[in-house]
Amino acid sequence: MPMPLSTLNSCDRETFVAALGHLFERSPWVAEEGFERRPVRDRSHLHAELCAVLRAAPRERQLALIRAHPDLAGRLARAADLTAESRREQASAGLDSMDAEEGAELERLNRAYRERFGFPFVICARLNDRRSILASMRQRLEHDAEEEIDRALDEIEKIAELRLRDAVEVG
Amino acid sequence: MPMPLSTLNSCDRETFVAALGHLFERSPWVAEEGFERRPVRDRSHLHAELCAVLRAAPRERQLALIRAHPDLAGRLARAADLTAESRREQASAGLDSMDAEEGAELERLNRAYRERFGFPFVICARLNDRRSILASMRQRLEHDAEEEIDRALDEIEKIAELRLRDAVEVG
Repeated sequence: MPMPLSTLNSCDRETFVAALGHLFERSPWVAEEGFERRPVRDRSHLHAELCAVLRAAPRERQLALIRAHPDLAGRLARAADLTAESRREQASAGLDSMDAEEGAELERLNRAYRERFGFPFVICARLNDRRSILASMRQRLEHDAEEEIDRALDEIEKIAELRLRDAVEVG
Repeated sequence: MPMPLSTLNSCDRETFVAALGHLFERSPWVAEEGFERRPVRDRSHLHAELCAVLRAAPRERQLALIRAHPDLAGRLARAADLTAESRREQASAGLDSMDAEEGAELERLNRAYRERFGFPFVICARLNDRRSILASMRQRLEHDAEEEIDRALDEIEKIAELRLRDAVEVG
């Protein structure tokens, strides 16, 4: 059930974190700290304040958040460990209907990316489809680590924005 | 001359606003308020805090910022009133090398957009070229006003991010 913005501006910390703790993958600390930045005037403002918390965090915490993301899962991969949000998002990108060849390519690229950067490939699946995801993986494998940390944080902000739309009523 | 981030974290308000007042078109109030959000840990964090200021502002101020943007200028249009930043950005999108037909189309779309929404069409010119700009104008004319206010603010955040890269040294 989406929560009205007025409730988020007046509720206690536990309620706030319960409503928004899932926006950043397995990282409720973003909502914990965002609580201090209330009141917010609308959903875009709430998103901007949460992103400011993320950007203010020490590099180690940002990397922990990036590492909290699951690998993109091909059809044959076991998806049991995904959060409910990640499972839905990956399905919307058509990752669950890849053929065997695409699935093998995805696994190869996942592995190469992790080996190169030490963290998983993060992309806002809902804004992509399986073709654009594979193309993006190939391209981003060429980057250096600093570029990819920054890009991963950008993608995480987009993921959070779409999760926020589901979590908070327009207001 | 780009300013080091450490200077921005330690300088007085006047220096801060002098360095960053141009990031948001003719709207130094964003930097004025952003000053209170120091220290920032890196350029992305600085950008996120400034965007949070923008999103926290009352709708009237956001609209004033959108209205502070110049029309996109075709080759034949007088560009004398553009800020130096806007002139460079529009040139990078190839708007200064449109032929007469494209220029007329741009003017027609500018006018239609302003009539429909009451504010100018805002787009991050440096991330576009003249073809994608014309296509985007046609598409965005179909939106409603709320969508376009939000989209204009998104574009303004991108413009500010690129101006910030020119204004602040990596750190």
